Amino acid sequence: MTALDHLPYGVFSTSDRRPRAGVLVDDRVLDLADAAESGLLDSDPSLYAQPALNAFMAAGRTVWRATRDALRDLLQDEVEALVPLAEARLHLPFEVADYVDFYSSRAHAENLGRLFRPDSQPLTPNWLHLPIGYHGRSGTVVVSGTPVRRPSGQVKPPDADAPAFRPSARLDIELELGLVIGTPSDLGEPVSADQALEHVFGVLLVNDWSARDLQAWEYVPLGPFLGKSFATSIAAWVTPVDAIPRVAAAPQEPEPLPHLRAAGRAVFDIDLEVDLNGETISRSSARNLYWTAEQQIAHLTSNGAALRTGDLLASGTISGDDPGSRGSLIELTWNGAEPLELADGSERTFLEDGDEVVLRARTAGFALGEVRGRIEPTA
Amino acid sequence: MTALDHLPYGVFSTSDRRPRAGVLVDDRVLDLADAAESGLLDSDPSLYAQPALNAFMAAGRTVWRATRDALRDLLQDEVEALVPLAEARLHLPFEVADYVDFYSSRAHAENLGRLFRPDSQPLTPNWLHLPIGYHGRSGTVVVSGTPVRRPSGQVKPPDADAPAFRPSARLDIELELGLVIGTPSDLGEPVSADQALEHVFGVLLVNDWSARDLQAWEYVPLGPFLGKSFATSIAAWVTPVDAIPRVAAAPQEPEPLPHLRAAGRAVFDIDLEVDLNGETISRSSARNLYWTAEQQIAHLTSNGAALRTGDLLASGTISGDDPGSRGSLIELTWNGAEPLELADGSERTFLEDGDEVVLRARTAGFALGEVRGRIEPTA
Repeated sequence: MTALDHLPYGVFSTSDRRPRAGVLVDDRVLDLADAAESGLLDSDPSLYAQPALNAFMAAGRTVWRATRDALRDLLQDEVEALVPLAEARLHLPFEVADYVDFYSSRAHAENLGRLFRPDSQPLTPNWLHLPIGYHGRSGTVVVSGTPVRRPSGQVKPPDADAPAFRPSARLDIELELGLVIGTPSDLGEPVSADQALEHVFGVLLVNDWSARDLQAWEYVPLGPFLGKSFATSIAAWVTPVDAIPRVAAAPQEPEPLPHLRAAGRAVFDIDLEVDLNGETISRSSARNLYWTAEQQIAHLTSNGAALRTGDLLASGTISGDDPGSRGSLIELTWNGAEPLELADGSERTFLEDGDEVVLRARTAGFALGEVRGRIEPTA
Repeated sequence: MTALDHLPYGVFSTSDRRPRAGVLVDDRVLDLADAAESGLLDSDPSLYAQPALNAFMAAGRTVWRATRDALRDLLQDEVEALVPLAEARLHLPFEVADYVDFYSSRAHAENLGRLFRPDSQPLTPNWLHLPIGYHGRSGTVVVSGTPVRRPSGQVKPPDADAPAFRPSARLDIELELGLVIGTPSDLGEPVSADQALEHVFGVLLVNDWSARDLQAWEYVPLGPFLGKSFATSIAAWVTPVDAIPRVAAAPQEPEPLPHLRAAGRAVFDIDLEVDLNGETISRSSARNLYWTAEQQIAHLTSNGAALRTGDLLASGTISGDDPGSRGSLIELTWNGAEPLELADGSERTFLEDGDEVVLRARTAGFALGEVRGRIEPTA
């Protein structure tokens, strides 16, 4: 494996360069705007000389592949003028159009069902028939490294008569993988499962921060809102789909309706982990997703809804069957009943001020862009 | 009353003008880009020479007021070169950032509670404590006049063993009023109820088309998704907040928590109606909203979520207590049990292909921009 197997895209600036597209090569960044300007890439420099990847993402799979091929050729040899990563400031890599959060890990859905609705079946009746999802807030998607302020909000403990407004006491993470949509689709025209991946520019890690106490009080009947909308962190680097191996997905029972079937259904072969203050507290895998990228896109567009360049489709928390593979603290601590014991002797149920969470992912011998965030106290 | 009391903003093009900002004066449009270019307005022409109002919206209340004052002066006299409305093509007036749909009419929430959850209290326990809302799909917001294709999706009748995929048989409307956010707020900084209206550029009618059969099967536990995301229609004209009278809102019991209180809580004094194939089937009023614009914004930002220029905050369906004032067909026909009898002798429970719905609104002697949409058959 070499750095040329990865080549993720991001947006960076330096003391003398305004934000523009770059590609990561080990611990250095190639300025794509400069490279195209000087004729090293056979594409329009205006695709890259922008503070977001959206123009390049909209250019479509032929351009993405040609650029990747050209970069791999170019970078075989030593290239001058790569920017050391330490000198680059990293920005949100793309302008987020709509942000959809799915709920596609069966173990996670079962765990949350047991915790939030103990008197019902863990899975709601629809779960095995469609990839449940909902829209999140695009405007509060932030790049890795952005501090996350503890949100306040309405909470109502079961034994209280009325709600109170206070800082969340149950601040959590969600380990997710996100699809980044490149080419749009037309309003009124569903995208078939077999065509779905053609629209995907790349993937990246997502931390869907969640205030469980706000969420529990607000989410019936219209779903999560303020318990999620204060911040969603994404990696600074988008990994091209072509860089990621996929493996066959397990058969689904019941078999889904025809519009959700795809030939050779597969999941991304990516290992995942959650680090809290430098200590790994969960090891999971994107193989743990029941609903695949193709199925999520086919479902999302099945009613005629259009995809736009910049749509972010997150997987939902990825948990495995093993307790050590759960992707959120509410699962790892079973709603706080089983605190985590950390190496420094402290315990955690939910996040404390000053805690730093890093999501990591590896595939095919390289690490995807991490997602890092530290909790700041309520203002 | 004269046309100068209204002066709503929109985006139009003609055979020889690319899309740009305009202001409606009776049945003619003043080209704001041209007006600024020729010095008739004391503001930067680049605010208007764009295919969306967002730059003007971001300029803030001082600029909005100065522009409105200048237009009222200017239009006192006959102005050359107004474009007849019939020659203008109207576009989506602004680029929608995040779309939030609230649920702020008490009569509507009670009706839906009775229909969707007949074994529970009509209002969920949180309803009187906070303005419930959720995020909708920004990318499928369309301008008035855009045809709406009947969505297909998964439906599961109560007596069926498994869901089926088919065209929605319960296609509905929702009569709503939307707030259009002009000036953004900072991430991590709640906007107080008293400051909230400073951020609002204007209001406009919204038809939140809903496929009730898709919605019923999908919405537990994460809320509406495909039952709503196929299309949301908005008016072509945004009415400035300053043009709309407000009246005192009824006291709330229980009194909300302090962050949701505002001095002089008021609602927009706007009369509303729903026309189906030319016949008025509902008469309502924005006075029927329990939660006000200030409260919605204070709630939305109470966790630190930022507002962006172009955010659309819809009220949720506006129904009154009187059955003739219900803002959706599911309420007007009581889930299909009481069909509407139309003047042509036909009956309606939900929308049929070819049906045309027009939402209308009046205040202070003028009509706000209508929202028109005709149902096309599934592809």
